[in-house]
Amino acid sequence: MGALDTAILPTAADIDAAAQRLFGVAVRTPLVNAPVLDAALGARVFLKAETLQRTGSFKFRGAYNKVSSIPLARRGAGVVAYSSGNHAQGVAAAARLLGMRATIVMPSDAPRAKRARTLALGAEVVAYDRNSEDRAAIAARLVAERGATLVPPYDDALIIAGQGTIGREIVEDLARLGLAPEIVVIGASGGGLAAGISLGVKARVPQAKFYTVEPEGFDDTLRSFASGKREANARMSGSICDALMSNTPGELTFPITQALIGQGLTASDAEVARAVRYAFEELKLVVEPGGAIGLAALLAGKLDVTGKVVVGVLSGGNVDADLFARLIT
Amino acid sequence: MGALDTAILPTAADIDAAAQRLFGVAVRTPLVNAPVLDAALGARVFLKAETLQRTGSFKFRGAYNKVSSIPLARRGAGVVAYSSGNHAQGVAAAARLLGMRATIVMPSDAPRAKRARTLALGAEVVAYDRNSEDRAAIAARLVAERGATLVPPYDDALIIAGQGTIGREIVEDLARLGLAPEIVVIGASGGGLAAGISLGVKARVPQAKFYTVEPEGFDDTLRSFASGKREANARMSGSICDALMSNTPGELTFPITQALIGQGLTASDAEVARAVRYAFEELKLVVEPGGAIGLAALLAGKLDVTGKVVVGVLSGGNVDADLFARLIT
Repeated sequence: MGALDTAILPTAADIDAAAQRLFGVAVRTPLVNAPVLDAALGARVFLKAETLQRTGSFKFRGAYNKVSSIPLARRGAGVVAYSSGNHAQGVAAAARLLGMRATIVMPSDAPRAKRARTLALGAEVVAYDRNSEDRAAIAARLVAERGATLVPPYDDALIIAGQGTIGREIVEDLARLGLAPEIVVIGASGGGLAAGISLGVKARVPQAKFYTVEPEGFDDTLRSFASGKREANARMSGSICDALMSNTPGELTFPITQALIGQGLTASDAEVARAVRYAFEELKLVVEPGGAIGLAALLAGKLDVTGKVVVGVLSGGNVDADLFARLIT
Repeated sequence: MGALDTAILPTAADIDAAAQRLFGVAVRTPLVNAPVLDAALGARVFLKAETLQRTGSFKFRGAYNKVSSIPLARRGAGVVAYSSGNHAQGVAAAARLLGMRATIVMPSDAPRAKRARTLALGAEVVAYDRNSEDRAAIAARLVAERGATLVPPYDDALIIAGQGTIGREIVEDLARLGLAPEIVVIGASGGGLAAGISLGVKARVPQAKFYTVEPEGFDDTLRSFASGKREANARMSGSICDALMSNTPGELTFPITQALIGQGLTASDAEVARAVRYAFEELKLVVEPGGAIGLAALLAGKLDVTGKVVVGVLSGGNVDADLFARLIT
């Protein structure tokens, strides 16, 4: 793992500690099995429905694990995060539950619904202009001025460990059915979800295989696996998967996903749209495009899963009603 | 229970037997808890997501319990049912799993999607004209000609017992959380779901209270509770809840719901539409109007549930994409 200080990388024990913190606070989301999907793929397919998590995405897990770990003496100064979407809501909800102030730096052109949901969770929203301002600099200034704690979207051991509780639950729920995950398919952007889940699953099922899935044209993780170093995307927008627009794998997440996953897939916008529609028609679940990319890869036959126990993660459901209506009709 | 032969009424033991038959075949649907809904209602609210059941509604449970109970010698002749929607799919799926032929008598103006889904499940569809033909007579003729078995939509002990497995699962899943249901809210039409669930829950939690919920203007169950006899609706169409258009409570279901429930609520089309939208925005679940009527009554404050353990049943999610798009935007 190169020059990286491995002491700051999360471990399976950190995931167990996160599970303790999240118990009774995060929703223990169901691992959904749909016979119609099993038949379509010729496999036993389970979907971890993080769409049903607090705030409508997995992001609450990492955020709460991080925010609840802030020492009491520092809580009065609140937390700061930057995000245009799901992380914003996760941090806002976590801070509210802990009676803390949350300030979210959001682009001025963020989807109105996501801004409204963040405000409704009691957060202060600081708008910035994507073209002329640097969100990290704005957040750093707020942190310095207030003595607040920054809650990063993925490059943080506590955030990764929080997302890792998903992996732990997948293994536990399958064990109750006498099963173990053979293939796990995870959407990737900054890599917090993929790093956390692969850590959480591998700790108990070492032989499990993982695949990241990224939007076509935004396959920085896939190219980083190939080159062995963190590659960047050429663009920062232009995919239907607004939740998967990080520029490059994280400094902390990449050594983990490289070691534990090391292989990836992509899905086109059309394949993602088909998965959103399939989830509506056949599964009766509302999934946002970025949250459906794993299912998209499976439905598009990007992987031969015949006869396997396959897990996909439906990572979020915060989709604008107009877009959803367009995708399903 | 008047002149009714109580020997044909289902019992808690019949529900246990149904649970055995359905094990590993029906989906054990999750009992969804959403903190946002708890906060909105000031209660602990759990939603039994039968939207995630095989065929997208609870109807599969009763249908499979009935069809799998047909003696082997009679299976070759197949099954016959009449339905314009969810029961059709439930019967078709059950018959296919058991290698049997299914014939469904459907109105010629049934929603195309429901007809297509029934055909896709391998059933033969016999169309009839709502205005000039009698579907029960057509089904009776098919039964007589073929020696087939009729699978009624609700007035059958095995059908009621199958739906009753939902009540059993609700009690089991809440017990794991150290809870018991205090109030259970169930959409009612023919009454198979309400009869089954109230039987299944009461067997283990005698103090639980139940409410049926019906569309405004189609409150035959409510009026039957008041008068003590089976009342009929003035109309057979005109509500957004196409799944709740039975004319009158069932001959078998009514004595059960009268004895175990005895009280009901109604919800307007606007309240149901709001619940469908709420399920999309906040719960990320696709629910059809008839399946959302219990949630609609809760969200509309028809009942004071403050501080209670409340269960609603999301009974189905087979909603046309165009209608759903209209309801959420």
